[in-house]
Amino acid sequence: MEIRFPFHSSLTQQNDFVHAGAITSILDSACGYAALSVVPEGHDVLSVEFKVNFLAPAVGEEFCARSQVKRAGKTLIVCAADAFACKNGEEKLVATMLATIMALQPNR
Amino acid sequence: MEIRFPFHSSLTQQNDFVHAGAITSILDSACGYAALSVVPEGHDVLSVEFKVNFLAPAVGEEFCARSQVKRAGKTLIVCAADAFACKNGEEKLVATMLATIMALQPNR
Amino acid sequence: MEIRFPFHSSLTQQNDFVHAGAITSILDSACGYAALSVVPEGHDVLSVEFKVNFLAPAVGEEFCARSQVKRAGKTLIVCAADAFACKNGEEKLVATMLATIMALQPNR
Amino acid sequence: MEIRFPFHSSLTQQNDFVHAGAITSILDSACGYAALSVVPEGHDVLSVEFKVNFLAPAVGEEFCARSQVKRAGKTLIVCAADAFACKNGEEKLVATMLATIMALQPNR
Repeated sequence: MEIRFPFHSSLTQQNDFVHAGAITSILDSACGYAALSVVPEGHDVLSVEFKVNFLAPAVGEEFCARSQVKRAGKTLIVCAADAFACKNGEEKLVATMLATIMALQPNR
Repeated sequence: MEIRFPFHSSLTQQNDFVHAGAITSILDSACGYAALSVVPEGHDVLSVEFKVNFLAPAVGEEFCARSQVKRAGKTLIVCAADAFACKNGEEKLVATMLATIMALQPNR
Repeated sequence: MEIRFPFHSSLTQQNDFVHAGAITSILDSACGYAALSVVPEGHDVLSVEFKVNFLAPAVGEEFCARSQVKRAGKTLIVCAADAFACKNGEEKLVATMLATIMALQPNR
Repeated sequence: MEIRFPFHSSLTQQNDFVHAGAITSILDSACGYAALSVVPEGHDVLSVEFKVNFLAPAVGEEFCARSQVKRAGKTLIVCAADAFACKNGEEKLVATMLATIMALQPNR
């Protein structure tokens, strides 16, 4: 699963890096979509918890997150995701997430 | 340390709850300010990593986060924070964070 | 919920501090017992995941962990716990955990 | 970096699975050795914090953990590790860790 978004000045913090909250959101979304790919049709997913390590300043023209399912249980799905900043055609790892996601049956 | 923000429809996700990213950001900010209160004057702080557990849907008129310093080291500060949704004058715990923050010397 | 254990040389690592694994185990147990106190009778509990921050060297004659339930859901229970080293009658916070625990029905 | 240890009955919990504490310890060690491989000679390493997700019961004749360095900073090293149970020649992923480790200069 891969998600991309372009740089926008509204996403920056005081040092002109993209804000940790925006990087966290793209990682969370990438994990959520990865989880959705392994639950039965019609099920929804919900983030139970996640941990993020911030590895480098998020500087670039574009950002992407790539996720994988580490384990798909009936109730809980564990996903990992990496976020990259793309600058001048080169990717740099800027953050990494390990997340626990819950599968929700339809019409609860 | 306490931070507050009012409900705004731009912060909601598909179920009209306030988005996990917004809750994470307020928790991160509350931890950052708590850390700032224990570093030497002129130092800045940077989130190394955090973990968030989402405990209940974030529904309310106002949201607040309260943080505490668990340990203030020379280089690393560990903080915990709770986020609450306020609805009809009652507070409900909606998320909790445990974070590691780095103290940065001025003029690096 | 509080758990205690005495210092024993078999639990130390290369610096004569009590090993992170032993501190993690006492925190995990304290969270597990806290979770057990809120699930229906006959249910068992299982650690889904935990995060631990190590705050100070674990040096002392006795160690204890104190836990609390942050949220008791039907399926998932979120607990926090602090571990303390006791030396000469004084307690020092040495580690803190935030954990997600699953309730398991009997006779699965 | 890979670490292995054989099954031993002293490491089991009430269900005859290898205890979460033992799995955590092997993951922590694997991350620590990975971090040691990227710090200057003579430096030591110390676990600042880690998060572990438990993915499957740890049942097998042998257990191993494989780690990688996600980012090697001057002060902090971030590592990820997976733990596997080996049974009848097949490996199964049983847990995964994301850890922050500090580099310590010699003769502090």
